[in-house]
Amino acid sequence: MRLLLLSNSTAPGRRYLEHAADALTDLLTGVRRVLFVPFALADHGGYTAHVAAALEPYGVEVLGAHQDDPIKLFNSAQAVFVGGGNTFRLLRELYARELLAPIRDRVTHGTVYIGSSAGTNVACPSIRTTNDMPIVQPTTFEATGLVPFQINPHYLDPVDGDTHMGETREERIEEFLEENDVPVLGMREGTWLRREDATLTLGGDAAGARLFRRGAKPEEISSGTDLSALLETMGRYR
Amino acid sequence: MRLLLLSNSTAPGRRYLEHAADALTDLLTGVRRVLFVPFALADHGGYTAHVAAALEPYGVEVLGAHQDDPIKLFNSAQAVFVGGGNTFRLLRELYARELLAPIRDRVTHGTVYIGSSAGTNVACPSIRTTNDMPIVQPTTFEATGLVPFQINPHYLDPVDGDTHMGETREERIEEFLEENDVPVLGMREGTWLRREDATLTLGGDAAGARLFRRGAKPEEISSGTDLSALLETMGRYR
Repeated sequence: MRLLLLSNSTAPGRRYLEHAADALTDLLTGVRRVLFVPFALADHGGYTAHVAAALEPYGVEVLGAHQDDPIKLFNSAQAVFVGGGNTFRLLRELYARELLAPIRDRVTHGTVYIGSSAGTNVACPSIRTTNDMPIVQPTTFEATGLVPFQINPHYLDPVDGDTHMGETREERIEEFLEENDVPVLGMREGTWLRREDATLTLGGDAAGARLFRRGAKPEEISSGTDLSALLETMGRYR
Repeated sequence: MRLLLLSNSTAPGRRYLEHAADALTDLLTGVRRVLFVPFALADHGGYTAHVAAALEPYGVEVLGAHQDDPIKLFNSAQAVFVGGGNTFRLLRELYARELLAPIRDRVTHGTVYIGSSAGTNVACPSIRTTNDMPIVQPTTFEATGLVPFQINPHYLDPVDGDTHMGETREERIEEFLEENDVPVLGMREGTWLRREDATLTLGGDAAGARLFRRGAKPEEISSGTDLSALLETMGRYR
């Protein structure tokens, strides 16, 4: 299984996906066609065109999953890219278009998976650690489970002196752990995960990630760390 | 119908509920017992004790909805207070304990309703405009509908120069409006709504609120504004 799970698609002052160019070059070697899943945003055509332009330097053709029967499109693609936006909207559409199980099946059998933000959330067993507003109700929060633990993309550290009374990200994840016994990797912007079958590595920005487990102190994870042990996770969701 | 819907329970540097003391004094006149609903947090007993201490100066007795059959407790209470925490956990418990319909019924027939944060979210037709992480999956996102429009508590303005790439609150609400045709009142911290039957008023902090409607520019609402027209909302959820 070959996965690239990005915390975010765009770094400040850089072009879409530019910060992850090296990882993308590596992963897209040998890929001629990418099936792009634009359903996290409302404008499927505009989103697909944007991604096609961004991936053009990699010499790949991009097909939008809204353009034809996605299963037919899948047959000619060597990679699937699930873009960011609203995770609830994305998951609802994946179920409504009966696309969730085929993605899991193809990726398990070798199709490259690239996800960013919401696309990274749906690579987890459930979307229970998304930051997004629940603007629509998917059938279930269960997602593809391409990794067996939870990811919180766009992870944000608490800000000293902030007077806002809403929960910090860390407090939200601790609430998740009160209800579920599953590790959560808080991935700061600029970082990504690479999975190559049984090997999992954190890459990208030096800011790294923060790993939360029930009953344990959160742990700082630096870029380059081998996280393959997380692939052994046997999580328990309430 | 008598409602007090608070954006948040605690203002910086002040005690729990202190910023809303005048509104609470007014609303709790004639109330001897308050049924407190602690299910948005994990520690029901601790949360209820905290609220009982905070409401003690108002001369009311506080019963926790976890302490006995809540319907029995309802019979001796003149007010219900639904506390903040995680909205998904709260709503799941309201359904699991068969408490949602009784709350709607009692409040429609005169029992005072006080909500803060998650307790304000569940006073809306759905929890689709909560800020919370979906740590558990309730049966449905539909809530009590004590008001016919949506509220976003802890409303936050975009921060100039912020380099974080996650969506701003305004962008999240615009995504909600792409999918649903229902007004959303973004209530800044320190503000509240008072409903007295057909009258609805924004109260509290001068920061006020921001009203979002599909296809319209967001509108600033200052404290003291009569918002009764919002009670005529005929929303359409996707």
